[in-house]
Amino acid sequence: MVKIAIDMMGGDNAPDIVLEAVEKAVKDFEDLEVILFGDKNKCQLNHSRIEVRHCTETISMEDEPVRAIKRKKDSSMVRAAEAVKSGEADGCVSAGNTGALMSAGLFIVGRIKGVERPALVVTLPTISGKGFVFMDVGANADAKAEHLLQYGQLGNIYAQKIRGIDNPSVSLLNIGTENAKGNALTKKAYKLMNEQNGFRFTGNVEAKGLMDDVSDVIVTDGFTGNMVLKNLEGVAKSIGKMLKSTLLSNFKNKIAALILRKDLDELTSKVDYAEYGGSVLLGLNGIVVKAHGSSSAKAFYSAIRQAKIAGEQNIVSIMKNTVGEKNE
Amino acid sequence: MVKIAIDMMGGDNAPDIVLEAVEKAVKDFEDLEVILFGDKNKCQLNHSRIEVRHCTETISMEDEPVRAIKRKKDSSMVRAAEAVKSGEADGCVSAGNTGALMSAGLFIVGRIKGVERPALVVTLPTISGKGFVFMDVGANADAKAEHLLQYGQLGNIYAQKIRGIDNPSVSLLNIGTENAKGNALTKKAYKLMNEQNGFRFTGNVEAKGLMDDVSDVIVTDGFTGNMVLKNLEGVAKSIGKMLKSTLLSNFKNKIAALILRKDLDELTSKVDYAEYGGSVLLGLNGIVVKAHGSSSAKAFYSAIRQAKIAGEQNIVSIMKNTVGEKNE
Repeated sequence: MVKIAIDMMGGDNAPDIVLEAVEKAVKDFEDLEVILFGDKNKCQLNHSRIEVRHCTETISMEDEPVRAIKRKKDSSMVRAAEAVKSGEADGCVSAGNTGALMSAGLFIVGRIKGVERPALVVTLPTISGKGFVFMDVGANADAKAEHLLQYGQLGNIYAQKIRGIDNPSVSLLNIGTENAKGNALTKKAYKLMNEQNGFRFTGNVEAKGLMDDVSDVIVTDGFTGNMVLKNLEGVAKSIGKMLKSTLLSNFKNKIAALILRKDLDELTSKVDYAEYGGSVLLGLNGIVVKAHGSSSAKAFYSAIRQAKIAGEQNIVSIMKNTVGEKNE
Repeated sequence: MVKIAIDMMGGDNAPDIVLEAVEKAVKDFEDLEVILFGDKNKCQLNHSRIEVRHCTETISMEDEPVRAIKRKKDSSMVRAAEAVKSGEADGCVSAGNTGALMSAGLFIVGRIKGVERPALVVTLPTISGKGFVFMDVGANADAKAEHLLQYGQLGNIYAQKIRGIDNPSVSLLNIGTENAKGNALTKKAYKLMNEQNGFRFTGNVEAKGLMDDVSDVIVTDGFTGNMVLKNLEGVAKSIGKMLKSTLLSNFKNKIAALILRKDLDELTSKVDYAEYGGSVLLGLNGIVVKAHGSSSAKAFYSAIRQAKIAGEQNIVSIMKNTVGEKNE
């Protein structure tokens, strides 16, 4: 049995899509228990494996992260994180304020001893549909080479345990593929990653090949990772907008659009990384999953499933025993 | 009269597309003189404003940049750069090895006194077709905040003189729009840019809005800039690939593709930044323009036109008088 704490009040479409996702998850997974934190008056769910705990506060998207976590003690997010801290829940899921959830992870759930900097991990789409693990997408804007090495260790475990990839390849995001390329940070990180044997390091990869299945895990600092993530999102959206206006620009194009509609929708969902689940703050004493703020019930369901797999696979204790001990 | 030195031998399709572009340029611009450097046996052009100078060597894409510049003294690229250095030509254009051309710029043409780090500038497409000036896309992987401030000064002049934008907005690429966002570098750069009054600083912009006309000039360090540029290129290409395979996946889609073909080609050329001209190494004692390695004659022609405008507008002496003197 895996127990997941869920923030009912976070995200643009809360609590409706959260409740819809939770209902489907407890139906699909017989070994899943859920503790729902939020306004009990807004929850009609009634199930033996769902427990609702009433909270009087909510953290909004506008709240200043650290302050919100420290002051809003009875918020659904803080109480979900506390359930992980106490060991009552294996993990928590929220679609709320990203900064606040990261703070809750760091200050309430806490770091694994020996992990210097937890990292935010996402799975990004590739053309083949396989996807790859990408980190750090913004937990730490200023990283050292040693942090990137740890990201490689954490990402290696994540790819094996959550994505089921045997002996994953781990690469470093850089501005050239040759060994000597990059800035001071990536040059040093390359050296550290190349010297270790805890994971299968496959060298540098460039940002232009990201969607071509170049590697199972790609590691970068939080500034670059966040930049690339937002750029991916933005370019995909801009091209979509241009394509849409082309398709609607005259009568004959509209007919073509009608013919293509279903296939284009499929293509759109293929490049939408929310479909691959939430982002995970790795390196903590528990599982913290951030679902997209604008998650659909389907995306939130994926995030719950992700937290459940992480719980079953004991990734936290594996990380403690490998990354944590190695660096203590 | 503006005189441009042209490397006839650089790029995937040299010298054919270079010669085609030069022929059109001297026809279109009556105040343009060209010195063509390369294998004179491969050039059939005969025009009063085109002078061909024979060179016995060529720098290839595989040559190690600095070594190639130092050793291949009779290469078309080195001799074109020397014509700029001597003052004989106002600028040079090459579609050859990027690293070698940057080295030729730095070591042969030389920096403007007071400019600490020249930056590589491109114009990137936006949905509206207006485009924006983006720098540094890879001249210096490790930048200091002071360099980013200078990039703002150089980019401001470039946008005014080459792109004809009056009082351009200059922004800093960052991972959030709020003042306090970013890594140590961007936080400090924000402060420096916000305190000066040499250009109109409009704050931080995020990578997700790049194609939405958020600013006329966007400044970043060479590592991030190169990363974003390659990411833009890669995502556009990947989406194009996926779209193409959708369009060819069955009979009815192929019909829709036939209907849309012309409009989709237009859309493709709209996101192709080679159409906006070459990249320029700014901050040198002369104009050095890099045309795309896989340039069409049209793109190479744009690069020649760009070098010509830069010469007419005297951007080098303006940069000397403003950025250079300010920082001496």
